[in-house]
Amino acid sequence: MIIRIALDAMGGDNAPQSVVDGALRAIAAGSQAEFTLVGREEVIRAELERVGAKHDFRIQVASQVVGMGEKPAQAMRSKKDSSLRVGANLVKEGRVDAFVSSGNTGALMATARFVLKTLPGIDRPAIASLMPSITGQVLMLDLGANVDCTADHLCQFALMGEVFASSVLNRDNPKVGLLNIGSEEEKGNEVVKVAGERLKKISRCFVGNVEATGIFQGKVDVVVCDGFVGNVSLKTAEGVASMLVHFLREAFNHSWLAKLGYLLVRPAFKRFRDRFDPRVYNGAMLLGLNGVVVKSHGSADGFAFFHAIKAAEELVTNRVNEKTQAIALKMQAMAQLDGNNQRDNDSRDTTVATNGDVHG
Amino acid sequence: MIIRIALDAMGGDNAPQSVVDGALRAIAAGSQAEFTLVGREEVIRAELERVGAKHDFRIQVASQVVGMGEKPAQAMRSKKDSSLRVGANLVKEGRVDAFVSSGNTGALMATARFVLKTLPGIDRPAIASLMPSITGQVLMLDLGANVDCTADHLCQFALMGEVFASSVLNRDNPKVGLLNIGSEEEKGNEVVKVAGERLKKISRCFVGNVEATGIFQGKVDVVVCDGFVGNVSLKTAEGVASMLVHFLREAFNHSWLAKLGYLLVRPAFKRFRDRFDPRVYNGAMLLGLNGVVVKSHGSADGFAFFHAIKAAEELVTNRVNEKTQAIALKMQAMAQLDGNNQRDNDSRDTTVATNGDVHG
Repeated sequence: MIIRIALDAMGGDNAPQSVVDGALRAIAAGSQAEFTLVGREEVIRAELERVGAKHDFRIQVASQVVGMGEKPAQAMRSKKDSSLRVGANLVKEGRVDAFVSSGNTGALMATARFVLKTLPGIDRPAIASLMPSITGQVLMLDLGANVDCTADHLCQFALMGEVFASSVLNRDNPKVGLLNIGSEEEKGNEVVKVAGERLKKISRCFVGNVEATGIFQGKVDVVVCDGFVGNVSLKTAEGVASMLVHFLREAFNHSWLAKLGYLLVRPAFKRFRDRFDPRVYNGAMLLGLNGVVVKSHGSADGFAFFHAIKAAEELVTNRVNEKTQAIALKMQAMAQLDGNNQRDNDSRDTTVATNGDVHG
Repeated sequence: MIIRIALDAMGGDNAPQSVVDGALRAIAAGSQAEFTLVGREEVIRAELERVGAKHDFRIQVASQVVGMGEKPAQAMRSKKDSSLRVGANLVKEGRVDAFVSSGNTGALMATARFVLKTLPGIDRPAIASLMPSITGQVLMLDLGANVDCTADHLCQFALMGEVFASSVLNRDNPKVGLLNIGSEEEKGNEVVKVAGERLKKISRCFVGNVEATGIFQGKVDVVVCDGFVGNVSLKTAEGVASMLVHFLREAFNHSWLAKLGYLLVRPAFKRFRDRFDPRVYNGAMLLGLNGVVVKSHGSADGFAFFHAIKAAEELVTNRVNEKTQAIALKMQAMAQLDGNNQRDNDSRDTTVATNGDVHG
């Protein structure tokens, strides 16, 4: 099977360099994917020439570029030939299997959602990303696509996470946790409580609530939350990591002895940094869309973009969308059945009640 | 002015040792406070004897102890002579100026709220704590007292944070930010958007939205959020910090060269650890209550408990509650005035509308 991936050659702070470099890194690492660079032809050709790329890239012309600061709705209306729109169209038309972009997050999400729609059984796409933990990696979603979620949305996110963890991370019985402010069932806000009750019934992978400390302890394979909370957690993690690295540098610069010691621990320090290098974790997946779309960080360099390409390849190779759709439809059917049963019970209750029975 | 502080001698994993040790550390550091130990007399006397305490502590007998796992509502009903309840009563009766406890968080919050009520003008107390940042310290609230907040609640938290930052942290024009998933005004969920609009009108300290990365960059002095989000952010920070320290230890243990280097950087490493030692940040303040109550971490040792005592002393010395009440009542009056004006405008609008004017 040949995987065909479209790459937005115009989006992000370092395009098109980072995009071409990322693709070349993927090829050097053994990727068999067929890459299509989407954007202004002269810009793409100039970059391919500059780096002396020997690989034969396809080019799909898109005459417009959505700026990083542009409002999504406006970009959607006024730029119908943007690299974002053309890339999403390629996926919709089945001409490529996935689209990767470092462009404007809001515009990419809005465009992809408008063009591709969600998978049957899924109401809303979620932004999902791998995060480092003490024991390996954990998938977290939603990281910012949905600021107000219902319990149903959270259940669907849990399901998408479950499929990802079993098919991409190869976890046999992935543990899915609901991000909460305590591990006890009665904790949290209403939406989270209802989602927890529902997940207990419908998912064998659901292990209950998990506190934010637990994300990084490897207690679960998947952490589910609404986009507001997920985004705050993700950015808290980034903020703390960069503050601690800052503190470490200051400590190592404090005295000549510390500076000398640093020379000896430098390889160890590099190994430490590599464990949570954000570039390795680049590639936020827009799960739940009817097509594979991966958002690379706006400031991604070639190494980071390469990892976003890898994420897209894994989603395609492991047929994550087909599996998600199958399980989502099954869940939907179960919920309808449950709803019917519930209505049956309710009508029976009413009958009893009209017979004079008082329900406490 | 003599400050009188009641200390829960029974609450937490390390009581009464940590409590007596914390008080002795405070005295050794120059505290002039008069301490009252609350709990079972024989337990307290035994501990004072064990450490050979020369200081003359007051003892207030409380015959019951609320366990760390007990449900708050049940503890409130069944344990009316618990150290938590007796401590809160001492504050209410004006016999002490503050109460510090490492006990059951939920039970302490419920008891304190029931006994002390909130300050006039404040609807809900919030859990507030200092956090480390690159440039110093930042106050964050709410960290878990309120899982569902209205815009009004967030505005009141902002106000309490403002008072704390100016009177305890001595920041002349403290910067108060609203935790959000982007710095632009249109970002976030409805509650946060409405709170942002209102804060722009009522607070000169409000600087707009702040992303979670910004907490640790020292961009603001106060970060305001609902208790669910705040708790997730706090625990994310704890989780990331402990994961990174774990990664560092593994890196330093990886080779003999790294181990040797570690010997040289050990003092630097200690300096690094001290910058975010959670014990120094111990002492979550229950702001907005009509009385000063500080929650120390359940696992606090004497050094950590000492810092919780310091937090209580600072709240009392700087008259944070009096100042909060004054500004809260002023804000309430402004809101009422604004509400009246709004109603006037509304009725005028209605008149116009009934005259056939159509509002787009």
